[in-house]
Amino acid sequence: MPQAIDFYFDFSSPYAYLGSERIDALAAKHGCEVIWRPYLMGAVFKQLGTSPLISQPVKGPYSRHDLARSARLYGIDFNIPDPFPVNSLAACRAYYWLEASDPTLAKQLAQALYRGYFIDNRNLGEADVVVETAASLGIDKEAVTAALQDGDVKARLRSAVEGALEKGVFGAPFFIYGDQQFWGCDRMDHLDEWLETGGW
Amino acid sequence: MPQAIDFYFDFSSPYAYLGSERIDALAAKHGCEVIWRPYLMGAVFKQLGTSPLISQPVKGPYSRHDLARSARLYGIDFNIPDPFPVNSLAACRAYYWLEASDPTLAKQLAQALYRGYFIDNRNLGEADVVVETAASLGIDKEAVTAALQDGDVKARLRSAVEGALEKGVFGAPFFIYGDQQFWGCDRMDHLDEWLETGGW
Repeated sequence: MPQAIDFYFDFSSPYAYLGSERIDALAAKHGCEVIWRPYLMGAVFKQLGTSPLISQPVKGPYSRHDLARSARLYGIDFNIPDPFPVNSLAACRAYYWLEASDPTLAKQLAQALYRGYFIDNRNLGEADVVVETAASLGIDKEAVTAALQDGDVKARLRSAVEGALEKGVFGAPFFIYGDQQFWGCDRMDHLDEWLETGGW
Repeated sequence: MPQAIDFYFDFSSPYAYLGSERIDALAAKHGCEVIWRPYLMGAVFKQLGTSPLISQPVKGPYSRHDLARSARLYGIDFNIPDPFPVNSLAACRAYYWLEASDPTLAKQLAQALYRGYFIDNRNLGEADVVVETAASLGIDKEAVTAALQDGDVKARLRSAVEGALEKGVFGAPFFIYGDQQFWGCDRMDHLDEWLETGGW
């Protein structure tokens, strides 16, 4: 049995935020690790000619209602931020920069950015917000500011996005466990069952 | 509390077929009825400029895998038929013709058509298959054949499709209970919880 779940997400995806609040506990029940892999869903939208669900006619209003209802069911604090969606380039770069030296702290930064955005309406699309959020976790401001413009960090993010597309990732949240893909918050129950039973 | 769930589906939707095999039992647990409302998702695709999930790049291969995996999890016999998808005009007309006089038999016909298509690969897009399936339930062949070209029946289907769009239905399966919409097989757990708790 594989020991890790790959968790693909976009920092601007509200469904992925809801997933991020539940995936580690789900995996821990089965003694499984979770590797957080932020990527840029814009690359998928470009590849497939699609657009964010929440911006679509008819489906958009439904999804706003469904998101709020789902968050209440799971007991997760949640608001649709304004502005929404935003470009999460800086958030992703900060994540991959930090992950190279401290994956645990990188995950804490991701959680703090998500909660800041979807609870406290702090715009994670702005580099300043990313830097301030990192600083609140004790990360050096100058170091993270420099990382956002670092060529190696930029390359690492590009590689992460390309890697996600190559693995067939097309949504957020999107989970890969062994050879199984699970798309969406609403497949986390199947992932849970798969981990419990070893598959069917 | 409302006493009925509206269950919107397209006869050509594999996810709606999976939903159709589970919705009546789910509702019965809560003493709730289910009103089956076939419609033509082509009208939605036209309205929103979208296409069937299974025909889309990247998402299509995923959904084939997910459908098979979901069917196995629920213990439902299932194959992707060939041809797929098909135009379900005749199936819908037969349903609404029968529903006017015998809703229970109409639901049995819908189930028989679904199972014929998704288990035994009988093409419900063909009027002959619809007529033969109806005959297997004891329905007069000449009567159903005539109904498929009946002006009143055609009008009833058009009205059903327009009614679905007016209510904001955009997928299959799609459930409406009171003022709540639930889209997809993967929201049936939320619907179940809503019926159990009275909402949250």
